[in-house]
Amino acid sequence: MRFVLVGGNTETARIDGISAAGATPEGMAHTPSADLEIVTYGQPVSTRTVPVSPSGCPTPAVVTRAVFELLGFERLAVDSGLACSTSAPTVSIGVGPGQDVRDATPLPSAAEAFETARRLGRQLPDERLMVGETVPGGTTTALGVLTALGERPTVSSSLPENPLALKEAVIEMALDVSELSPGDTAGEPVKTLKCVGDPVLATVAGLAVGATESGTDVTLAGGTQMAAAAALVRHFGIDDALSLATTVFVLEDESAAIEELANDLAVDVTVTDPGFDAHDHPAMNAYVAGEAKEGVGMGGALALADRADATMAAVREQVIAVYDRLLDRGNDR
Amino acid sequence: MRFVLVGGNTETARIDGISAAGATPEGMAHTPSADLEIVTYGQPVSTRTVPVSPSGCPTPAVVTRAVFELLGFERLAVDSGLACSTSAPTVSIGVGPGQDVRDATPLPSAAEAFETARRLGRQLPDERLMVGETVPGGTTTALGVLTALGERPTVSSSLPENPLALKEAVIEMALDVSELSPGDTAGEPVKTLKCVGDPVLATVAGLAVGATESGTDVTLAGGTQMAAAAALVRHFGIDDALSLATTVFVLEDESAAIEELANDLAVDVTVTDPGFDAHDHPAMNAYVAGEAKEGVGMGGALALADRADATMAAVREQVIAVYDRLLDRGNDR
Repeated sequence: MRFVLVGGNTETARIDGISAAGATPEGMAHTPSADLEIVTYGQPVSTRTVPVSPSGCPTPAVVTRAVFELLGFERLAVDSGLACSTSAPTVSIGVGPGQDVRDATPLPSAAEAFETARRLGRQLPDERLMVGETVPGGTTTALGVLTALGERPTVSSSLPENPLALKEAVIEMALDVSELSPGDTAGEPVKTLKCVGDPVLATVAGLAVGATESGTDVTLAGGTQMAAAAALVRHFGIDDALSLATTVFVLEDESAAIEELANDLAVDVTVTDPGFDAHDHPAMNAYVAGEAKEGVGMGGALALADRADATMAAVREQVIAVYDRLLDRGNDR
Repeated sequence: MRFVLVGGNTETARIDGISAAGATPEGMAHTPSADLEIVTYGQPVSTRTVPVSPSGCPTPAVVTRAVFELLGFERLAVDSGLACSTSAPTVSIGVGPGQDVRDATPLPSAAEAFETARRLGRQLPDERLMVGETVPGGTTTALGVLTALGERPTVSSSLPENPLALKEAVIEMALDVSELSPGDTAGEPVKTLKCVGDPVLATVAGLAVGATESGTDVTLAGGTQMAAAAALVRHFGIDDALSLATTVFVLEDESAAIEELANDLAVDVTVTDPGFDAHDHPAMNAYVAGEAKEGVGMGGALALADRADATMAAVREQVIAVYDRLLDRGNDR
């Protein structure tokens, strides 16, 4: 098993009120690079800034790192359009950050990114891949992808109150400028990505297609963004089994409708509850209050812990250990 | 502890008879990229070609990977001038392959590479780094560096018979074209790298300097190339403890004079004998016959195994397992 984390940026995240994956718009640009470092090293190393939401909720990278420290699985970080450099070792897909989804072609190199990722997915020798993402603004492009493909247009949010009306307005503009109506790109995943996607979705979908083609089991680790990636895989014509592992926080978000969405796409869903309500701790309270919910493969990492018979109490203790280490070190939060 | 593997290329390797780090000159260009993949994945993944010497000796990456499979240490691969792309995740130093050492400035961006690596060395949060290399032709540039710095000009070879006269002739030309005499760049490590170095030496030296500056213990994993890196660190003015971990095959190569060289540089040496003469196996016979000797951090990996109380018998069994897996899969050898 290899845990693959795909990081990148999209200018879509700069739209006011769209994302909570960073304390400020500038901070948000650094979030994916810092997330890859936290999962790799246990702390950001090229910056001292730990990604937090505007209200102070720490990045889900803390949870993924905590599970890694308990289980010690193999990892691979993929640079698919990072706006800021990272000191985490990455395989580069050779694509830059995505443009604003309201541009006509926010991802002009969608085909190249998808094919490069597909080749990488075919190459990896593992029997099983778990694929997660870190891309601020990613649920909005996911909504664009689901809408353009004609799938159920439901997505979650890193904010406690999903700004769904805002996202829908953005995607209406995005489709308009691309001269598309909902469902117009059904069966055309690459065109979909080019017109309303982001580089991370292109790479996750390409990896999943390539890995599946070479007989590797794929679990998509995340919520509605990963469901959008699954939709791209299905519209590419792949009918093989596909799994999704997410958190109870996404399940409880009615605007996400993750079970219905997964059911539409014939995707098995595993939901894990880390039991964060058992603690009163700044690393967990915001999740209980409905923030963040998912990201950085958190739901997949929790599923791995569960399967390895690590207790959620042990996971929580390790989350606190990672968080306290970050807090000791950070000085910009 | 983190095992850092720095890969890159130098056109110097194209000089006929200089290196055995590949079956052909074209193969040699792929060797570092494939070595990083073997250590990361247990096999090359972006190519099916396993690096072997012209006589068929498999790359020392097999040994480093075998020890990793036994011990499971943290790794970091660094791209410092790879000529061919790799599907191993890397941190990139942002430098291209080195030119022929007989050019006036085979490494024009020596200062940038050294400083980027130094910054990375400072950033890494580990208490201990072990740093290895993979760069065909690297002992020739190492001879250039030692000579220009005025240190003992002795280097080992991946060939059973060290083509030392050829290397010395190459370095004489290299110094001439740079208008240098032996010892002329003492105290000037960056100028030395620029005039007679390669990108891997620049990065290994920069990493060692940066890590030492931030209180990290550094062990250089390799033979005379790593001694040349140690010389660069010393000429930068770093007096802290520095260790070198190499194989018995380098120790037994009189042309390497590794103990004298290390002694000159106040570097502690650990020598490990993997006991390859206990087997009659194609993964080991060539080493016993004096080929390869070192590389891809092999000596450091063996020292880690020794310290972890893994027996050399267990290491040898794992070397055979890794080799057989490569052989099963490869079809171009």
